[in-house]
Amino acid sequence: MQHGNNQRVYIQDVAVRDGFQIEPEFIATSEKIGLIDTLSRTGLAKIEVTSFTSPKAIPALADAEAVMQGIERVPGVIYTVLVPNVRGAERALICRADELNIVMSLSETHNLTNLRMKREQSFSQLAEVIRFARPTGVALNVSLSCAFGCPMEGVVEQDEVFGWAHRFVDLGVDGITLCDTTGMAHPTQVQFMCNAFKQRWPSTELTLHFHNTRGMGLANVIAALEAGVDRFDASLGGLGGCPYAPGATGNICTEDLTHMLALSGYDTNVDLDLLIACGRRLPAMLGHDVPGQVGKAGKVSDLHSIPQWLPEIKARADAKVALA
Amino acid sequence: MQHGNNQRVYIQDVAVRDGFQIEPEFIATSEKIGLIDTLSRTGLAKIEVTSFTSPKAIPALADAEAVMQGIERVPGVIYTVLVPNVRGAERALICRADELNIVMSLSETHNLTNLRMKREQSFSQLAEVIRFARPTGVALNVSLSCAFGCPMEGVVEQDEVFGWAHRFVDLGVDGITLCDTTGMAHPTQVQFMCNAFKQRWPSTELTLHFHNTRGMGLANVIAALEAGVDRFDASLGGLGGCPYAPGATGNICTEDLTHMLALSGYDTNVDLDLLIACGRRLPAMLGHDVPGQVGKAGKVSDLHSIPQWLPEIKARADAKVALA
Repeated sequence: MQHGNNQRVYIQDVAVRDGFQIEPEFIATSEKIGLIDTLSRTGLAKIEVTSFTSPKAIPALADAEAVMQGIERVPGVIYTVLVPNVRGAERALICRADELNIVMSLSETHNLTNLRMKREQSFSQLAEVIRFARPTGVALNVSLSCAFGCPMEGVVEQDEVFGWAHRFVDLGVDGITLCDTTGMAHPTQVQFMCNAFKQRWPSTELTLHFHNTRGMGLANVIAALEAGVDRFDASLGGLGGCPYAPGATGNICTEDLTHMLALSGYDTNVDLDLLIACGRRLPAMLGHDVPGQVGKAGKVSDLHSIPQWLPEIKARADAKVALA
Repeated sequence: MQHGNNQRVYIQDVAVRDGFQIEPEFIATSEKIGLIDTLSRTGLAKIEVTSFTSPKAIPALADAEAVMQGIERVPGVIYTVLVPNVRGAERALICRADELNIVMSLSETHNLTNLRMKREQSFSQLAEVIRFARPTGVALNVSLSCAFGCPMEGVVEQDEVFGWAHRFVDLGVDGITLCDTTGMAHPTQVQFMCNAFKQRWPSTELTLHFHNTRGMGLANVIAALEAGVDRFDASLGGLGGCPYAPGATGNICTEDLTHMLALSGYDTNVDLDLLIACGRRLPAMLGHDVPGQVGKAGKVSDLHSIPQWLPEIKARADAKVALA
């Protein structure tokens, strides 16, 4: 393996959807739009803007239309939205979404818990969305939850993951996201799964979506990069969380990911300073601390000033050397 | 690269020295001993017990002798202690330390700031320790701070790192620890440095000491493993911190490291459940939260129970399928 080498890596931010949807206080539409507009200028490949779901189910994103219509589109950025069904797809298309992201879980128990239906029912519903949206030319991505394990069922076999992936590839989706929804993936598993996926579907756009619930988030990114993956979801400030792990961190943090990739010689196309500035707006906006580290510690290249008392210490040390 | 494969990895805990030394409240000697005695039974390869420095300089570790004499030695565990000078080495030898760990920084500015002397002065003092202790047969390890960068000077060239390492190898140390003191290392750098070190000094025991200041701690472990490194410092609960990055996390967390390695197929020899139980004692002992993630989220294999309302949801879903 040889890291870096200026290889292009695509970073996709999900904070304003995946992060904001669990915030207890409603974030003003204008604040969402302001943040997305700044994020758009950082050079991110994709921004998951909102979710066209029922406002009753996710009140935090009840302003989906207003946000989509309010933001300024920057050429080159893909504005994706989550849609659960055909009704959501209609709303998203009216708002000129560049991509529809559809979601189901690979664990029957998790799908029942989260989406209140069986996997086959989810699949039928999503197949309908695909058939409905395909002719419009909009891009279609499917996010497969619990691809690396289910917090209730445990192991999700790779055959299961690839079986569902296969059915979606057959329906003509453009991209597939393997989601480590509750932070269960580990580097060996990631390496194995990504290698197998890339071999089987070399022309399907593969995204990895990691959570840092057990501290393995960026280690899994390294493992995925080695398997040739070049596209990652991440969340500004590390927003996101997980209902199964209270107190644990959420999605991998976009600033931390971008910072590591830039240092390691990858080309992310992202203005890291502007990105960090975006992340530093979150605590005031949300009224709480966020888990991201680089926002707190600064970049490796942000050097600290030499303490004022150092010249005196140095003079004393020099004097001792002279005496010796 | 092929991860895991039951390869042995040695885990060395530094929490009771590196972590405890910056705790504002003095931790009772009996509590320290109790924690170390449990840690000893987890199967860790090495425990850094305390520091034989001046009690005025580090009051938190003023009970170094009492701790060393109070702990129960478990065969197979190496009990190492930090010593700054010959006086410290004498005290450590009286307490039958298995290993003396000596420290200097590879950055002149950081060494002056931290140890109040020039690097050459530190080197002379440590060379004296080595000459004094060598005949006793005690193991000797040198920890080189800022091996991956200095928070004030920035880049520390690899020639600089290897130049100092060379001088210590010549003096006959058994092991060298490359310390990423303030969390500046990134995976490409780690891979490059570790490969070069292993090639140059294949028989010197190499330890990597990472901090998670910018979220890259476990990613750097993956990079180091790939370069053939099999020995890591880590800190229970992720204790440690860094004065240059307020609010940032400290050393990589022993539970998080062990959990990742075990999942990824490495042989750590560590009883992960007992280790996690140790880490969960810290918040009560210290009066504050700790940064480690696995202690909060549990292991990947700690499954969550299925919600009580799930059978009803499932019955409704089944009914819908039957109707369709």
